[in-house]
Amino acid sequence: MSDARGQLVAPDARALLRMLRTGGPKTRAQLAELTGLARSTVSARLEGLLSSGLAVPAGDESSTGGRPPALVAFNPAARVVLAVDLGATHGVVALTDLAGSILHTESRELAIASGPEPVLDWAIAAAKRVLTASGRARTELVGIGVGLPGPVEHASGLPTNPPIMPGWNRFDVPGYVGRHFDVPVLVDNDVNVLALGEHAVTWPDVTDMVFVKVSTGIGAGIISGGRLQRGAQGSAGDLGHVRVPFTRRTPQHGAEDADLEALASGPAIAAWMTERDAPALTSQDVMEAGLRGDPLAVQGLRQAGRDLGEVLATVVNLLNPSVVVIGGSVARAGEHLLAGVREVVYGQSTPLATQNLSIVHSRAGATGGVLGAAIMVIQRVLDEASA
Amino acid sequence: MSDARGQLVAPDARALLRMLRTGGPKTRAQLAELTGLARSTVSARLEGLLSSGLAVPAGDESSTGGRPPALVAFNPAARVVLAVDLGATHGVVALTDLAGSILHTESRELAIASGPEPVLDWAIAAAKRVLTASGRARTELVGIGVGLPGPVEHASGLPTNPPIMPGWNRFDVPGYVGRHFDVPVLVDNDVNVLALGEHAVTWPDVTDMVFVKVSTGIGAGIISGGRLQRGAQGSAGDLGHVRVPFTRRTPQHGAEDADLEALASGPAIAAWMTERDAPALTSQDVMEAGLRGDPLAVQGLRQAGRDLGEVLATVVNLLNPSVVVIGGSVARAGEHLLAGVREVVYGQSTPLATQNLSIVHSRAGATGGVLGAAIMVIQRVLDEASA
Repeated sequence: MSDARGQLVAPDARALLRMLRTGGPKTRAQLAELTGLARSTVSARLEGLLSSGLAVPAGDESSTGGRPPALVAFNPAARVVLAVDLGATHGVVALTDLAGSILHTESRELAIASGPEPVLDWAIAAAKRVLTASGRARTELVGIGVGLPGPVEHASGLPTNPPIMPGWNRFDVPGYVGRHFDVPVLVDNDVNVLALGEHAVTWPDVTDMVFVKVSTGIGAGIISGGRLQRGAQGSAGDLGHVRVPFTRRTPQHGAEDADLEALASGPAIAAWMTERDAPALTSQDVMEAGLRGDPLAVQGLRQAGRDLGEVLATVVNLLNPSVVVIGGSVARAGEHLLAGVREVVYGQSTPLATQNLSIVHSRAGATGGVLGAAIMVIQRVLDEASA
Repeated sequence: MSDARGQLVAPDARALLRMLRTGGPKTRAQLAELTGLARSTVSARLEGLLSSGLAVPAGDESSTGGRPPALVAFNPAARVVLAVDLGATHGVVALTDLAGSILHTESRELAIASGPEPVLDWAIAAAKRVLTASGRARTELVGIGVGLPGPVEHASGLPTNPPIMPGWNRFDVPGYVGRHFDVPVLVDNDVNVLALGEHAVTWPDVTDMVFVKVSTGIGAGIISGGRLQRGAQGSAGDLGHVRVPFTRRTPQHGAEDADLEALASGPAIAAWMTERDAPALTSQDVMEAGLRGDPLAVQGLRQAGRDLGEVLATVVNLLNPSVVVIGGSVARAGEHLLAGVREVVYGQSTPLATQNLSIVHSRAGATGGVLGAAIMVIQRVLDEASA
């Protein structure tokens, strides 16, 4: 059941649903106390949630006497979400519940550069297969989330001049996917999607967090005041094009200022290694060499961490996050990158900004992308106020 | 009238009140359409707003026939706010309405360094005088906002190690002021307060804005997603302690990395001028020399702008604001500082981040501080959800 404007959750009931989702099962009296609403108002609003299945009776609270009050709980199984994670060379499609738990998934290698139609055709077909395989009906689907490896204008869902995605510029991804499924299609870049997933799963109580992805490119997803911040044109978090002055770098990196991406990305480290007779081409090669303990890889990763740290020291002073999460394939090459980041950030940022700051590895694995894409949809459908 | 929890606006009615405040007078039918709520629900919620005086009948909508529908408007005169702006050497106390319009004001020179009790005793006495002079009753007061020239833990209202405020560290400003007025007392640093005021008055529709104050120190107030972002410990916006590498500066500034504040603040420019036989001591002296067109002041201001621009280029890539506002006394010395900022930011930040970016002077005058302090209270009292 949805209200007159086709919303899954009536605006009035959103605050109650949020309490059940984040705070666990509650009695009507507890909800009245927490919201400051009259008990009768709480009951009326719960009706809609109960009849839609989003809330369910959850037994009784233990009580020392008399009839125990009934608990109501959020029911993440009530609906499903399709999540699509497209990278430069991979695609993952998953069906999740309203908590982001993956019910069914399908993945394959693919080339994003082959263009939007073949890539999205596969994603759409895979989406139909995971929906069928899991035995869920089309009517249970509330939305589709898509993460892409390039800049996206989030409001419209259009990729904007994505450097590694020929043919995708301004391609109507929501329209193309939406023809097959009559639900909202939300699109964002992979870094924002990863930030949403990491925040929701690992750091749900943290209000200020920066997620940095270091792989073929370098970008950040910014959570401030508990919300993902995309900026005025959706380009917030562009760390890759911040210029790093050469004096901060070891002489081996040249004597010119350079973009962070030209210093600390996977291909930049690979090129630096190759010049020194340790041939490497991709982020993957760097990661594997780092994990093997290859001395040049370790040295390159450590310096890349310092270069990244130069930029993150400013970010930390500016945003005062309590957590900086480093993810992406280059970050999976052991502790070397993170050690360089920590060395510079703890040395340079102000004591007030670093005294409660954690700099940690991402905990999201291969399913981090689909998880984040699902969370993007869940937050839109369940949380966002209509007015 | 307030609800059971002592709130001025019942949680249910906040969205309606926000629409009236930002969108102008509306009929009940328009409010129902905008909120998706039933007409009867809108009428019920308006009751509370009308009886408290926050909303008032505003005549009829023009109509081509039949009885015209009645308009309802926000009534900023319904309550008053006390706003206190304390600087290193000045104090301003104002009484404002719920739109931030100043009804009565009192100001004086003072030394913040004389300690919290004499300074706050003056502010409290002045607050009582402006309240009396304006003929408003104590019962009409909804809150007090205080801006201080140093770091403040906003949640508690306590100054934390403020460098130019001896005796103020962890002094209970809300408790001391609150003994005289039975309303909430909100405290924040002057830069956040100025950012709130500038945003509310000059850029109300901008969601992403950075306000930079350049005077004795350098700091920023960050508006992201339409809200002031204070960070995890309240220290967000600390630009003054970002390190600027020496290669970016002209040789005259030395060959060492330095904090931005040591390069581009009023005292830093004054010291640089003094070394070159153009004696200057304070931000005020620099401003006056700049306005006179003193060549050394012009040169120092331009270079300070470039140094500030180095840091702001990163800020722009990171946050993708549509407006950067430069305020503070040093920024009032003509166009020189701003010219240096623009030269570097437009040269260095990415095209996507700068294509719709305005870098402008602050339009807030001497009353910017009290205006922002009032806005801080108004937003808390009228906007913030209770749950």
